[in-house]
Amino acid sequence: MRNIYVEFPNERPLDKQDVELVERKGIGHPDSICDGLAEGVSRALSQEYVKRFGHILHHNTDQVELVGGRSTPEWGAGEIDTPMYILLSGRATTQVGDDVIPVGEIAIEAARKYLKENFRNIDVDTSVILDQKIGMGSSDLRSVFGRKGIPKANDTSFGVSFAPFSLTEQLTYEVERYMNGTMKKKVKASGEDIKVMGERYKDEIILTICNGMVSKHIKNIGDYKAIIEEMTGLVRDFVAGITDKDVRIEINTGDDIDNQSVFLTVSGTSAEMGDDGSVGRGNRANGLITPYRPMSLEATAGKNPVNHVGKLYNLLSKEIACEIACEGADQVYVRLLSQIGHPIDQPLCADVQVVGPMKLEKRAVEITDYWLENIQEMTEKCLKGKAETF
Amino acid sequence: MRNIYVEFPNERPLDKQDVELVERKGIGHPDSICDGLAEGVSRALSQEYVKRFGHILHHNTDQVELVGGRSTPEWGAGEIDTPMYILLSGRATTQVGDDVIPVGEIAIEAARKYLKENFRNIDVDTSVILDQKIGMGSSDLRSVFGRKGIPKANDTSFGVSFAPFSLTEQLTYEVERYMNGTMKKKVKASGEDIKVMGERYKDEIILTICNGMVSKHIKNIGDYKAIIEEMTGLVRDFVAGITDKDVRIEINTGDDIDNQSVFLTVSGTSAEMGDDGSVGRGNRANGLITPYRPMSLEATAGKNPVNHVGKLYNLLSKEIACEIACEGADQVYVRLLSQIGHPIDQPLCADVQVVGPMKLEKRAVEITDYWLENIQEMTEKCLKGKAETF
Amino acid sequence: MRNIYVEFPNERPLDKQDVELVERKGIGHPDSICDGLAEGVSRALSQEYVKRFGHILHHNTDQVELVGGRSTPEWGAGEIDTPMYILLSGRATTQVGDDVIPVGEIAIEAARKYLKENFRNIDVDTSVILDQKIGMGSSDLRSVFGRKGIPKANDTSFGVSFAPFSLTEQLTYEVERYMNGTMKKKVKASGEDIKVMGERYKDEIILTICNGMVSKHIKNIGDYKAIIEEMTGLVRDFVAGITDKDVRIEINTGDDIDNQSVFLTVSGTSAEMGDDGSVGRGNRANGLITPYRPMSLEATAGKNPVNHVGKLYNLLSKEIACEIACEGADQVYVRLLSQIGHPIDQPLCADVQVVGPMKLEKRAVEITDYWLENIQEMTEKCLKGKAETF
Amino acid sequence: MRNIYVEFPNERPLDKQDVELVERKGIGHPDSICDGLAEGVSRALSQEYVKRFGHILHHNTDQVELVGGRSTPEWGAGEIDTPMYILLSGRATTQVGDDVIPVGEIAIEAARKYLKENFRNIDVDTSVILDQKIGMGSSDLRSVFGRKGIPKANDTSFGVSFAPFSLTEQLTYEVERYMNGTMKKKVKASGEDIKVMGERYKDEIILTICNGMVSKHIKNIGDYKAIIEEMTGLVRDFVAGITDKDVRIEINTGDDIDNQSVFLTVSGTSAEMGDDGSVGRGNRANGLITPYRPMSLEATAGKNPVNHVGKLYNLLSKEIACEIACEGADQVYVRLLSQIGHPIDQPLCADVQVVGPMKLEKRAVEITDYWLENIQEMTEKCLKGKAETF
Repeated sequence: MRNIYVEFPNERPLDKQDVELVERKGIGHPDSICDGLAEGVSRALSQEYVKRFGHILHHNTDQVELVGGRSTPEWGAGEIDTPMYILLSGRATTQVGDDVIPVGEIAIEAARKYLKENFRNIDVDTSVILDQKIGMGSSDLRSVFGRKGIPKANDTSFGVSFAPFSLTEQLTYEVERYMNGTMKKKVKASGEDIKVMGERYKDEIILTICNGMVSKHIKNIGDYKAIIEEMTGLVRDFVAGITDKDVRIEINTGDDIDNQSVFLTVSGTSAEMGDDGSVGRGNRANGLITPYRPMSLEATAGKNPVNHVGKLYNLLSKEIACEIACEGADQVYVRLLSQIGHPIDQPLCADVQVVGPMKLEKRAVEITDYWLENIQEMTEKCLKGKAETF
Repeated sequence: MRNIYVEFPNERPLDKQDVELVERKGIGHPDSICDGLAEGVSRALSQEYVKRFGHILHHNTDQVELVGGRSTPEWGAGEIDTPMYILLSGRATTQVGDDVIPVGEIAIEAARKYLKENFRNIDVDTSVILDQKIGMGSSDLRSVFGRKGIPKANDTSFGVSFAPFSLTEQLTYEVERYMNGTMKKKVKASGEDIKVMGERYKDEIILTICNGMVSKHIKNIGDYKAIIEEMTGLVRDFVAGITDKDVRIEINTGDDIDNQSVFLTVSGTSAEMGDDGSVGRGNRANGLITPYRPMSLEATAGKNPVNHVGKLYNLLSKEIACEIACEGADQVYVRLLSQIGHPIDQPLCADVQVVGPMKLEKRAVEITDYWLENIQEMTEKCLKGKAETF
Repeated sequence: MRNIYVEFPNERPLDKQDVELVERKGIGHPDSICDGLAEGVSRALSQEYVKRFGHILHHNTDQVELVGGRSTPEWGAGEIDTPMYILLSGRATTQVGDDVIPVGEIAIEAARKYLKENFRNIDVDTSVILDQKIGMGSSDLRSVFGRKGIPKANDTSFGVSFAPFSLTEQLTYEVERYMNGTMKKKVKASGEDIKVMGERYKDEIILTICNGMVSKHIKNIGDYKAIIEEMTGLVRDFVAGITDKDVRIEINTGDDIDNQSVFLTVSGTSAEMGDDGSVGRGNRANGLITPYRPMSLEATAGKNPVNHVGKLYNLLSKEIACEIACEGADQVYVRLLSQIGHPIDQPLCADVQVVGPMKLEKRAVEITDYWLENIQEMTEKCLKGKAETF
Repeated sequence: MRNIYVEFPNERPLDKQDVELVERKGIGHPDSICDGLAEGVSRALSQEYVKRFGHILHHNTDQVELVGGRSTPEWGAGEIDTPMYILLSGRATTQVGDDVIPVGEIAIEAARKYLKENFRNIDVDTSVILDQKIGMGSSDLRSVFGRKGIPKANDTSFGVSFAPFSLTEQLTYEVERYMNGTMKKKVKASGEDIKVMGERYKDEIILTICNGMVSKHIKNIGDYKAIIEEMTGLVRDFVAGITDKDVRIEINTGDDIDNQSVFLTVSGTSAEMGDDGSVGRGNRANGLITPYRPMSLEATAGKNPVNHVGKLYNLLSKEIACEIACEGADQVYVRLLSQIGHPIDQPLCADVQVVGPMKLEKRAVEITDYWLENIQEMTEKCLKGKAETF
């Protein structure tokens, strides 16, 4: 009934091939800002629905458009001239009987909170215009949410993931997490807009990093150079903790130091000076963009975690792939395809491709079955903000 | 050169006539909110221009549109369902040479500050969407601001005012100031959206007051009734301090107590539930709407205080009328008409109509001349926030 | 029951006084554009409501904000660089039972139609962004519209008007109508943004006219000068058909011909290059702005013509004043004050001030009573687009 | 210098594997509408830049957000209640010296034109609100466009494609093209919002099609059923012209015919009733979404075709893959990776994976080299609207 297929294609896993390419847009990239806002709004709505009605109601807030502003960064200073404009849209249930749910207010509040918590150099009060056009959901869809039992799939759609990360993927992912994490305490001048591009040709790995630097914390071009060098050293040390291999680290190599044309920002994100963003154009649910791996184009962030298979199947396939990989597979690709109107635990097809020992077949089936059986655990994780969506 | 004309028309002053009618929209009325925001933005820009360039630059921010939201007030509680939407527009100088002035950011910041300082029941972070479309001013107009000497009038326009207030006018004005002032400390349930309509027929004065009440501070309909009665008593006492005459006080008489259909709000203003507002549709610069008195239609709030005669002449005529009235006139009407391109201290016509002793003519001319001579004092008052514009 | 008071104040009518001042903003002035759009939307909605339900439903669309664009006029050419942005807002009934009224679509359609019919040089498809945020009306107000009999006043408000026009007023009004009417056929280069300021000092009348000229129809500065002269001649001839008096005509005297800094536009309105507009800041319901006459600040355009006394009483007082003036009064001032919740034919006070023979008292009462009795005729006129509102 | 690598991985081509999954969002899907608008705006700007300056200037208009409206479809009728709202954003060069380019107007005009030409059931005048917030591009980027020679890459980014289409892919693609092409003439009731999901398990191919039907052309539920059956027959015949294999065709199988809950629209697209859309979330540059194939996440539509490698490399890799496939390869994957600041004909890496005879290596290198050498042909194709981007 769950239509689980396990294949063992005769392929070399990606890390045995010659070329690899992977990208991670850090949390301050305009696309990631939109993903974060979309998911934050969905989570806040879900929590409010649960509080009021005992279960999540229909919504999909996976539509956020960020229109970049204008700014004038200066050494040791800088100003936002035109605020960035953020439009929250999508659908949500605004009324149940006579009970009106303040969707607009919840969305704005959640968005402000997300920005405040994640972007220490953005003054949310004055540098951001938060607008919202969240409409009412269609009534048919709304009705299905109250029912008992496993929800029905909202659409014919698919989720895709893989495991494990290759070394290049791991480095690409971890380095952004490090730079936007513990490194931030040491280097105040590093903004949140960090893009890491990992490339491998045979044994040679290069991490090309673009980091929007925060002008008020940098005195002059000399200071800028010194900070970039400091960061390069820190990242090199961090990478050395993960691998013995020689990894080239290049930070802001597009800079033209002589002409002082460098990646300088007021707020730590290029959204302040003209870079636009939207949901679903950045990282996949596993945190990476992987042109050498299968991907789903469904935006995971912002969709309702009850019956939107575009969200749930992306998250679920990640869990399934990871667990099978833990059992000893070299490479696992998982693709889940839903059937509109059918219970979400019964996909049209759950396709698992394993590069590894054939004996894994049974475990692969068990793991896949377990997660489909318990798909509503994923809904809970989303509700609690424990599911990574970008 | 200042074309000052003083007339002594053979009229009964308004308070000797049979009928009088006057209105004041309190600071929480949607139109007044817009006036306050427009002036707040203009003041913040003016101060920034002075800080950077030593003088105010061209701007006119007398365009604010408030689109009402939706709300669900409830006894002892209540929620904003859809935030009100406020669009700041107008023109301002955004650049001088290479120096970019962060007009958008200054405007948003000033607007937030104004709302926070004046509306204790509005959560600016979540109940208001503040948007801005402030454009660049035309370059010709911008150039005149840097010049030495008396600025040239920006337009052919006029300012109008009168003095003194009749008793009905005084009561209408003072009662709103009292209710939104010292009374607020005693009656937490009184919102800022207060409209006072003063009517007099012969000796009978009625003050009809609409006050948006704040739901979270009112337990039930009985409590509501009690609070309205308390307020009626307080206003009656306040009025008794001004006049011995019998004045009828009617607060929220449009309420249908039996059906619990009363003027209840979450935030203290009807803007939360569908009442829109814009600049220039409420009080004149003297704080009143007076269909029995001459009025100017020029919005005073938000215009630049350097050469916009629509602002300066309204403010100036108020000062002139008041001073002449102090000299012993029963009624003074002042109308100032500018000539585009001429220095603002040289109106095409300064028309003063006095009901009172003919001997006042000389003082009337002197006072009018003084204020035209010192018109730039008014610019200073605006800059310091000491000019009342609505 | 209709509380009609007729007074005969001992005043000189305005045209016997020394100074007069009057202004008319032509249909292409940004404020008038907004008035026209607001009324057009209200009319379209009213007609649709009547078609569907047999009577007009609750709405007030007296909120339009126009944010000026940017343009580059050139001799014989010119372009709109940034479209003007027009936000239609206000309230309307969007649903009755299961019947959804396409308010947004009706509003946009009506707005487009109004712009297309009145502005031959505006390309509505590309030079204008028409947005709408028309909300749902409050349910209480909506319910009163279906009832039989005379509607109840929506608010405590007043309407004000006067008659007859003085010569200065007549000229101010008629000259704009002429220039935007039959003169347009002869002078293609004259845009719709025409402001006429009429001033009289004793016997001297000056009409100061600002007219946005259309660049594509003007070859060069010489051509411009010639066209202004032609227009001046045409207006002089037109005025000569109305009065024998000497009237000075000044068109675009703010121009700096030597520096080619003249009032040139692409579309015939200054809205294209930064002049903003809103409803209710321009002409009163009689088509004029009259600081020497009593005025109401209520915007007439866009309000519902069923129970909004801010609209109906302004229109009604104009009719009443005109008819009484026709009976031989030198000057008539009419002020109607409503009582919230009372039938609109029963004002709290209908105050008529007549300068003229005392014998007019009876006719004044009859005429006022007639119009109150038949106030719903005014609703019909609005519905058919026969009521002038600005 | 062009870093071309050709690999021959030991893989089964996709059509020899057990499972395949592919999707195409038709031109009326909200995401595709946004893609089409983005590309239309970019093309119009490019053409205008060429006309004025001889070459394309900097712009990226790959940001369009569509917020769905509300509608009431009815048998034989139907209305749009709330227009859909479309926000065009991105960046473009608005000024060169004194020459102002009317970017806003060009964008709105291009968007209207695109909608009019492609959606016969959308009334662009009244059912769509077209807004724009296209900002000014950053000056550094703008300067590079005027230079002679091969442009430098704007970013470190990649393009990905493959060839040939498998049968399932071909059917998925062709069926939408047929349904939105010649079938439209026979079946007026078929709207433009068509989503085709192609699934293959071993030899069994299913095409699941969702088609928004146009209510005014359908009399009742019986008529609806008959039209769906007619369409199913037509598609079956069309497919029979491509393959002998048995292909299951399912159109609107999510319908609940008994309860008349079917996919009915007024305008032929679900954007009218709440489905939002944005650029880059639908088809890749080859017209498909292929979770079993490598994909790039870069939105192709709307980017500048001069130096945006996110656009050019996606288009180029498609050409390269197709030509190599024509030489006899079973499967070709092409990935091009740029180096920021380097000429776009010199990628960091051009990785070609061929499943097929090893002798193709030389041709693969030649073809790849040729297309890199002639990358500016692709710019020309975009300019002429001959490059398919979604």
